Amino acid sequence: MIRRGLGKKVWVIAEGYIPAESTGPAPQMISHETACILNTNAEDAELAIFVYFADRAPAGPYRVRVPAERTRHLRFNDLDDPEPVPRDTDYAAVLISDQPVVVQHTRLDSRQAENALMTTMAYPQD
Amino acid sequence: MIRRGLGKKVWVIAEGYIPAESTGPAPQMISHETACILNTNAEDAELAIFVYFADRAPAGPYRVRVPAERTRHLRFNDLDDPEPVPRDTDYAAVLISDQPVVVQHTRLDSRQAENALMTTMAYPQD
Amino acid sequence: MIRRGLGKKVWVIAEGYIPAESTGPAPQMISHETACILNTNAEDAELAIFVYFADRAPAGPYRVRVPAERTRHLRFNDLDDPEPVPRDTDYAAVLISDQPVVVQHTRLDSRQAENALMTTMAYPQD
Amino acid sequence: MIRRGLGKKVWVIAEGYIPAESTGPAPQMISHETACILNTNAEDAELAIFVYFADRAPAGPYRVRVPAERTRHLRFNDLDDPEPVPRDTDYAAVLISDQPVVVQHTRLDSRQAENALMTTMAYPQD
Repeated sequence: MIRRGLGKKVWVIAEGYIPAESTGPAPQMISHETACILNTNAEDAELAIFVYFADRAPAGPYRVRVPAERTRHLRFNDLDDPEPVPRDTDYAAVLISDQPVVVQHTRLDSRQAENALMTTMAYPQD
Repeated sequence: MIRRGLGKKVWVIAEGYIPAESTGPAPQMISHETACILNTNAEDAELAIFVYFADRAPAGPYRVRVPAERTRHLRFNDLDDPEPVPRDTDYAAVLISDQPVVVQHTRLDSRQAENALMTTMAYPQD
Repeated sequence: MIRRGLGKKVWVIAEGYIPAESTGPAPQMISHETACILNTNAEDAELAIFVYFADRAPAGPYRVRVPAERTRHLRFNDLDDPEPVPRDTDYAAVLISDQPVVVQHTRLDSRQAENALMTTMAYPQD
Repeated sequence: MIRRGLGKKVWVIAEGYIPAESTGPAPQMISHETACILNTNAEDAELAIFVYFADRAPAGPYRVRVPAERTRHLRFNDLDDPEPVPRDTDYAAVLISDQPVVVQHTRLDSRQAENALMTTMAYPQD
């Protein structure tokens, strides 16, 4: 009954911004931005992520693997190859997968004493 | 004038995470994650839910019924058959219905003194 | 250059809940749930809204007009004909328009001292 | 491997509202509403934005350029030609681009001591 192949191969997140400051215990309450990726396939998915900026050329590709029938909640904070994602900087991201996946975008902002949350499905390119 | 058959039969939530801690009165202010399901059909909808993880095989199916012309705001916190959904653990979910339904995903996070909210439509598979 | 006819005629909000309690000045900080409707047409749009519940038959239709080239940010709190939308109660909503419109769903929750916000595009039925 | 032409040419945000009050340091913590635009094309994108209101004719077009392979996180607070977007006023927005782009909508509300966040993909018109 389990379903395979859910989602699309190209997803876009237009709103990216990792606050440099945080309040509360690490790692849960560190301000972070996440791409939650679900791979429902019987094979691993290999993703290439490109990060776009306001005033310089895109960075990437960042290489990410999501195993078969697994989800990976990828923090942009943790990307460092080929280069880290700068803090307090507007960015956007394009995720390209060799298998269909589903991508949801979340930010936890703990710059102030009480954390704020936001989420949306990323934009699936047909 | 009432409409039938709205939505799709397969929906995906890629971002799942139930905080283990809460602040405030139960049950409203318990940190929770919800799949809000609307069934506009003249017949009950039977759903099978599969929960995916980062590092183990999927759990499920969880069996859920949404009566005809009713909405059910299902807390993942309350799922316990075949097993509870672990707290403080990344997960994702696929909802498969025998009738078209609409699914919206919400989290209330009350780990800190003031609650945070987020919501998005789930991803509808064509 | 202005565009007409944007959107769809049927929209679904699966997550509805108006907190009964609020903190802060009225009307801005009253806990509320809103359907933001944009009518880009040259003619007024007439909507019928049906509200669904967990354990009783749907309410409605509620009749709402959105003038040509105008937006209306409709608070579910303000609906009272044929009946008010109950507080602290799970609901869902279907909006049916005679013209294409765009519908976005927002909740401001001020039960605790600091307000929380969430938003999503409603689900557009093809 | 980088992808071109992602997204659509017409996007709609139905929920617009810039709170007049803020708490915290400028510019990060000023209450604001943002359209995050990603242009994955090899050429600059020229956008015309129309702002709709509850009780008056639409304003615009506002002219905005997003360079090739860049993202622009446009604050509605900063629009002032042909006229500023009023505070504490319901509005909606239509963004029309000469190239495909992706648009995500975010609000940071810092009226109270702790900021609240919300985001959603804008509605892409086919």
